[in-house]
Amino acid sequence: MINIIVIGTGNLGTQLCNALEKASSKPDATVRLLGYYNRSQTLIPKNKSRLFSKMDHLPSCDMIIVCTPDDAVSKVSEQLPSSDTIIVHTSGSVHLDILNKHKNRGVLYMPQTFNKERTVHFETLTICLESSSTAVYESLEIVGSSLSRKRTPLPSTQRKYLHLAAVFTNNFVNHCYLKAAEVLEKQDLPANLLHPLMKETLEKALELGAQASQTGPAKRKDAYTIAAHLALLNDADKALYKSITDSISNTYGN
Amino acid sequence: MINIIVIGTGNLGTQLCNALEKASSKPDATVRLLGYYNRSQTLIPKNKSRLFSKMDHLPSCDMIIVCTPDDAVSKVSEQLPSSDTIIVHTSGSVHLDILNKHKNRGVLYMPQTFNKERTVHFETLTICLESSSTAVYESLEIVGSSLSRKRTPLPSTQRKYLHLAAVFTNNFVNHCYLKAAEVLEKQDLPANLLHPLMKETLEKALELGAQASQTGPAKRKDAYTIAAHLALLNDADKALYKSITDSISNTYGN
Repeated sequence: MINIIVIGTGNLGTQLCNALEKASSKPDATVRLLGYYNRSQTLIPKNKSRLFSKMDHLPSCDMIIVCTPDDAVSKVSEQLPSSDTIIVHTSGSVHLDILNKHKNRGVLYMPQTFNKERTVHFETLTICLESSSTAVYESLEIVGSSLSRKRTPLPSTQRKYLHLAAVFTNNFVNHCYLKAAEVLEKQDLPANLLHPLMKETLEKALELGAQASQTGPAKRKDAYTIAAHLALLNDADKALYKSITDSISNTYGN
Repeated sequence: MINIIVIGTGNLGTQLCNALEKASSKPDATVRLLGYYNRSQTLIPKNKSRLFSKMDHLPSCDMIIVCTPDDAVSKVSEQLPSSDTIIVHTSGSVHLDILNKHKNRGVLYMPQTFNKERTVHFETLTICLESSSTAVYESLEIVGSSLSRKRTPLPSTQRKYLHLAAVFTNNFVNHCYLKAAEVLEKQDLPANLLHPLMKETLEKALELGAQASQTGPAKRKDAYTIAAHLALLNDADKALYKSITDSISNTYGN
């Protein structure tokens, strides 16, 4: 049984506490969420685990999972006392070495977008693991398997690439959705006019791959349509449109 | 009964011929696909409608639907003889006026991405209609309703904005998928590591809207992570990453 404390209950921390609480309550549980800590001392709605009040006086446990923003991982690591407890961070872009103060350290990276409201189904994810030793890896495997059937080892040197790809897949895709929604809104056109296209774009890319799926004015270098689109946009959005169009044009050659 | 001929059997034309053939075979059919024309005289696989050999000697019909690339619509319109036949184009970015040679003219715009292999479910789409007269509109409605329960009138002045938004939603989103896939491939990481993220990104944007869904280094102006990502990219992809990051940063203010 691995006794766990979670530090930080933002988007990921909240979801992780809820998933670990659920995993803890199973008859054959291999993990137990002892509780969580956050700076603002905010309770997670509907989660019955304990909220601890001091980060430097946490109860003894087997694993502390740090779910703070990336730039706070280092500071939290420093504040946690040295011990045999496994200290784990969950950041795609932060190296395992940042936890070097701690003898037993690891990473549990879940390539997904989290927010407090939408329940994330961890079981659909491949949980990416890295550790300072084989023994730590085994503990991470136990925690990972309580969340998902799919795990893979992934060193920091590759995890940063996966995180970069995740930014394209989520942040950048979502921004394209936003720009489309803004165009429709300014014309008083309902957003749902393009919902089927959003879905088909995803399904098509999953089936055929993104390269075979590409169509449109940038790919076919249709200067007339591109110019007509640019004329509809403000300067900032023109720059964005041009940049993505150039990138598509270059990708598909002549 | 509206007798239809389709000109051009690229991605959209092929799908439309197949959907119209299916609609033609229903017991209560209101449309009939007489056949189609394409320059290369290529048969549509599994479609039993006739392939006509000369565009300027098509049989008499009620409606000709032009599914050529945008820049060919004008030329096709010129080549078609003047008559009472309704001439319709299907292009998001082309004005209805391009068909001015023809007394009865219209637009059937389906905001979707088409290719020959994947069957598109027209019934999920809102078909956008524009016409030169009320009588023509009624005919378009009949054709539109044979394809989908959802139709809306949409003038050329607004259709071009919908088309622009569709480019963001499809071409640009798909390009982000491609860039992510390239990053993974170069690291020999399996593409399916990010499939759950692709799906959740869509679901989240549909549920919460794209603005509320945004997260990540660009939104939180995390200069450290942005610089670390840029260091992993070649010059062309750096430019793309910077441009989208700037746009996100500007969107979410300070």
